[in-house]
This record gives sequence, C-alpha cells and structure tokens, in this order.
Amino acid sequence: MPLQNCIECMISFNDRNGLTTEVSKVSKRVRQEDIAKELGLSINSVSLALKNSKRINEETRQRVHQVAKELNYIPNSIARSLVEKKSKIIGFILPKITNPVQIETAQLIERKLMANGYNMMLMTTDSDRDYESFALDILVSRQVDGIFLFPTNKQNQDKIRSIRNAHIPMVLLSGGNYEPASDSVYMNQFKGAYKAASHLAQLGHRQIAFIHGGPANMEKYTGYQAALKDNGIEFDEELVITVDNYSYEQGYLSAAKLFSKGGVTALFASSDYLALGALRWCREQGMRVPEDMAIVGFDDLEAAQYAEIPLTSVTYKVEELTTLAVELLYRLITEEEQAKSKPIRIEIEPTLQIRSSCGYKSKNRQ
Amino acid sequence: MPLQNCIECMISFNDRNGLTTEVSKVSKRVRQEDIAKELGLSINSVSLALKNSKRINEETRQRVHQVAKELNYIPNSIARSLVEKKSKIIGFILPKITNPVQIETAQLIERKLMANGYNMMLMTTDSDRDYESFALDILVSRQVDGIFLFPTNKQNQDKIRSIRNAHIPMVLLSGGNYEPASDSVYMNQFKGAYKAASHLAQLGHRQIAFIHGGPANMEKYTGYQAALKDNGIEFDEELVITVDNYSYEQGYLSAAKLFSKGGVTALFASSDYLALGALRWCREQGMRVPEDMAIVGFDDLEAAQYAEIPLTSVTYKVEELTTLAVELLYRLITEEEQAKSKPIRIEIEPTLQIRSSCGYKSKNRQ
Repeated sequence: MPLQNCIECMISFNDRNGLTTEVSKVSKRVRQEDIAKELGLSINSVSLALKNSKRINEETRQRVHQVAKELNYIPNSIARSLVEKKSKIIGFILPKITNPVQIETAQLIERKLMANGYNMMLMTTDSDRDYESFALDILVSRQVDGIFLFPTNKQNQDKIRSIRNAHIPMVLLSGGNYEPASDSVYMNQFKGAYKAASHLAQLGHRQIAFIHGGPANMEKYTGYQAALKDNGIEFDEELVITVDNYSYEQGYLSAAKLFSKGGVTALFASSDYLALGALRWCREQGMRVPEDMAIVGFDDLEAAQYAEIPLTSVTYKVEELTTLAVELLYRLITEEEQAKSKPIRIEIEPTLQIRSSCGYKSKNRQ
Repeated sequence: MPLQNCIECMISFNDRNGLTTEVSKVSKRVRQEDIAKELGLSINSVSLALKNSKRINEETRQRVHQVAKELNYIPNSIARSLVEKKSKIIGFILPKITNPVQIETAQLIERKLMANGYNMMLMTTDSDRDYESFALDILVSRQVDGIFLFPTNKQNQDKIRSIRNAHIPMVLLSGGNYEPASDSVYMNQFKGAYKAASHLAQLGHRQIAFIHGGPANMEKYTGYQAALKDNGIEFDEELVITVDNYSYEQGYLSAAKLFSKGGVTALFASSDYLALGALRWCREQGMRVPEDMAIVGFDDLEAAQYAEIPLTSVTYKVEELTTLAVELLYRLITEEEQAKSKPIRIEIEPTLQIRSSCGYKSKNRQ
C-alpha cells in the first residue's frame, strides 16, 4: 500500500522535528479547534500562536505549541497534502543556476505556483546527462505532483518518455529543432539565433563572431550557422568561442581573443552578460560600438536595456512562456489521459529587440 | 519501522517511472554485472548502455534497458542512498530567487555539494514567515541529510531550534545582530551597510539616501542608521525608499523620486542592481557620478565591476562563505552530538570595494 507507506513516512519524518508521533493518530485529525478547546483560547489566538505571531504573548505561544505536540497536531499545509494524496510540490530542473533567463523562468513559475497553493523544489544539472537523469529520479521518488524540465538537447529522451508514460505530469521548457519526448512549451532558440545573425548579416557584416555556452546552446549554434549559410557567408570556426558560463568576464576575455587579430566587425553572443563584457572590452580599447563593432546579445535582460550603449538582443518571452507552461502542467495534473495522446508542443517565437548596439538606423530604434 | 517504509515508498514511487516493482526484490540487489551476464555483454557496455551512450548501438541499449527493467535493477545513485539510509540530498532555502548574491551562494554551494556526491533541493520563501516554515517542514519530511537556510530576520526561531534539537543538520546563512537559533556562517550585513554609509558620510555627504528591499534588509537598514548616528547625521525617513525586488528598474524609479527634489548628494543602495538603475537615471538627467551624485552599492557583483562608471560596493564574500558553510554542514552531518552544544557562529566581515562611483580619491581606487 504505497500511500499508507507514504503517510507513515511523512509522519515518522515529521516526528523528527517533533510535529507528531503515532501513525494511528492520522485517522482522527487534530484541528486547531481542539487545541483552542483544550486551552480555553479562541481559534484565532491558537492560529496566531502556531504562527508564532508577536500578537500572542510568549507564554501562551509556548503552551499552544506544547499542547499541539501532545495532541499530535499536524499543520494544515502538510495534513492537506496527506489527505489529498498530493505533495503540492512541483519539481523544477534547470541546467545552469547562473543562467539569468532560466532563473527568471523559475522565479515567475514559482510565483504562479505559489498563487495556486503549490511550492517549487528546484534542482540543477549543469547540462550533464547523468545529473539530469538523477534529478528526475529524485523528484519522481519524492512524489512531486508535476515536473518542469529545461532539457539539455536530446539527452535522457527515453527516461523522459517513460516518466510521461507513467502519467507523471511533466512539461519541457526547451525544444525547437527536434521532437521532444514529452509535452513542451518553449522559446525556439534556433529561430532567435537565426534572426540575430541574419540581422547582422543584412547590415553588411561578413565576419560575425559567435560566443556560446556549449551543449546547452546547440540550438543557438545551429541557428547562427543557418543564418550565415542563407546569407551566403562561409562558416569560420575561428570566429566561434565556447565559454563555460554566462559572465561579463567570459565575454570580456572572448572579445580580447576574437577582436584583437582584426577582421571581425560584428558579434552575436548567446547571453547578454557575454555581450556586455565584450562591450566593456571594446570601450577600453577605444573601439566604438556600433561603428567599429556591432554587438547583439540574447535574452533581452534588464542589464541590456540599461546598458551604457543599450544592447540589441533576442527577447526571451519569459512571462508568456511561464504562463503557458503553468497552464499546461495544471491541465496534465488534472486530466489522466494525456499520456495516451501525442505530446503537446507549444512553441513561442522570439523577437529581436533592436537598440543602439547593432547600428541599425530606424525610427523604431530605442 | 520508518526506514522500511521509506524504502517501500521509494520503491513504489520508482515503480511509477518503471524502475522497479516488488519490494521483496530490494534485499537481493541486482547489479550491472547481472545484466551483463544475462545478455553476454561486458559490464562496461551495460554501464554505457544504461547511460544511453551513443557508443552503444540503439538496439543493444534497448535490450539492456529492457533486462534492467525485468530484473528490477535500481540505479546506483538511488540504491546507494537506500542502503546508506541517506537521501544524499541537501535542502537549501532562500528568500528571493531574484537576489543575485543568494543565487550565487546557492550555485557555489551546489558545486561543492556535487563534488561530494550530494545533490541540492532548493526552495524559496519570498521572505514570508509561513513559506519559510512550510519549506522547512517539506525538507524535513522529505528526509534531506541537511539544510542550508537564509533566514529572514528572527522569524521561525522556535522551529529552527526544534529542528536542530532533533539532530537534523542545519546551517543558517544569515545572522548578524542577533543570536541565531542554529549553527550559522554568515556575512555581517549590518557591518557592511555601516561601512558603506560611513564612507559616504566621511566624504562629507550629509544627505545620504538609502534604497532597501524590505524585511530581508533589516540588518542593512540598522547598519545604515547606526552609521548616520555615529557621524552626527540625523536620520531622515524621507531619504529612504523600500522596493520589492532588486531590479535596475526599481533603482531607476527610486532615483527619480529621491533625487528630483534636490538636496541629496549620495546614495547607498542595498543591491548593485538598484545602484546601477539609479546610475542610469543620473546619466539621463545629465547628473555626473560621482561629482553630482556619489553612489555605493551592495554585493560587489560582476555588473558593478564592469559598469560604465565602476561601482563602489560592499563585497559579499560568497566563495569564503560557501566554503565555510559546506564544511560546517559536513561536520554536523558526521557528528551526532552537535545539538547538545551551543550553536556555532562563524561571522565573515564584509569589506568595501572602492571604485569610481563614490568619488573617493586614492591610489587604491580602481
């Protein structure tokens, strides 16, 4: 009887921080009313005391906590999840905790979940196949009600499929140029990169450098290459640098390598931080942006908008993405039949937010 | 028998993603060797196949996964944690997922944990007492091996104490001007804010504005007030603005409110992003930094160092903090007696990184 075990587990675990003791007590739930009656207090006072509100004096608070312990009172949040056989926890797995847009996504999703009485449990994978697989095992074994996953490329497709087939609601937040193994809502990063590189090519640049973050950026990489091809520019590996994190420093150092030898007139960076680090290098070298070097970033973070030279960047529509993703997960949580049907795919197409750093002249320019 | 229940739970949960089925199978652990023997493959091939390595052809991989399922093979990561009666998961609770220094702390701690075979499970509280309490309940009920908590001020002190008394290893990452209820390693934010505000006062400023993020910033607030007092400056509530998140935009809007009426000559912001947003507003208004407006931030993020006018900021020693915090948690996990002794307190004193934005003239200035 798995559920029975779960309850026993949770109770026995709660026991460790003194919440309650005997499993037998679960059936007859102790409520705040019972504590109030026991102590001759109002339910409101008990509720406040249990929340350690300063509005209740210390002595009374201690008595309430003491009686709550004696009666094996279980806080509503936990009791409710036991009764509903739901953990009320949603798992969230992302590759890089340093990736600002992934963090913003996690933050907006968490706000929307909390507004619906759910909490979020976040784990990261560093884009590693085994970490990702382990994180999925952990969240499933911890019986979360649903999972959001930023998959790195196509790794663990089989496991993702098997989890979906086990009717565990899971929404993938990345996809693009391949068939995701589960339901997904994602920005098409291939198209975003394609737009950015094409824009620079159409401004007349032929030597367009590219800085990317490795495995997690393969879609952007292929988008960059496709844009060069479609604009009759030969791909030159010399103009591409891989960095291991999205930092100003990595952008600054990459700019030094890419621009020092001359020839390059434009840069597409797979993150705004990388672009801004490169911008800083240009200024220190007396290189004018965009006149001497056109720069385009990715994610359209606040830092891009507030930069010394406002940065042209690919807009990652986080608000739209998270709203659709949470709606989809709730649909999967409430309807049982989803796994029988073909995975749902919701694609969001990124736009290019043109500012000063790319050198494009138009009324639209900010 | 709690542990037995846990195992049954985990097995029955694993069952949901098809890892294994009968509890009875747990005793006789199936190893990769068994799968290799069954299929006449090398252990190495099985290991690679289970990791879906492209070095093993698709057909073989499917056969290996099939047999692994039939034999109820449990991946080592999970099996080990069952055998050791440890979850190998460390819980991490922080107030704001948008707070860059908290995220950097989580990231560095996670790296150090992964290097030691642990994974991290992160939850956030939005500085709310009830969310914080709920997150603690959840992590304890999920039987994590230890907990890192960024407590918001003194809320939930009783619960934190009771968790410590239950011998659940927990390290607090905030503290300062009060007695923490559990073992802690923290930056003294009071002292950091005191140094920043004092520095501005000693540069001759009398009207020093302050932007802070509410409840989670109370230590910085009191540090700012103490600095004014010790420098003979009267506290003026008009010069303080509370914002609900650390964004460039909030800094920009706060600057408009604080500086428009004139009088203010210096700003201390409780986050670099707020300071940089204010910096941007000054530039748009033709106000020179530091000549017309001296600005000091907090956290000393990369964005401060790479800013158009390099930002003077309080250095939050994340590397040192996380190293000490992880060491302390491991000590608590391995030694049973810790709860009997007085909580350990390790305080780190922040330094002021002086750059151009404050107007201080010296050889040390960057």
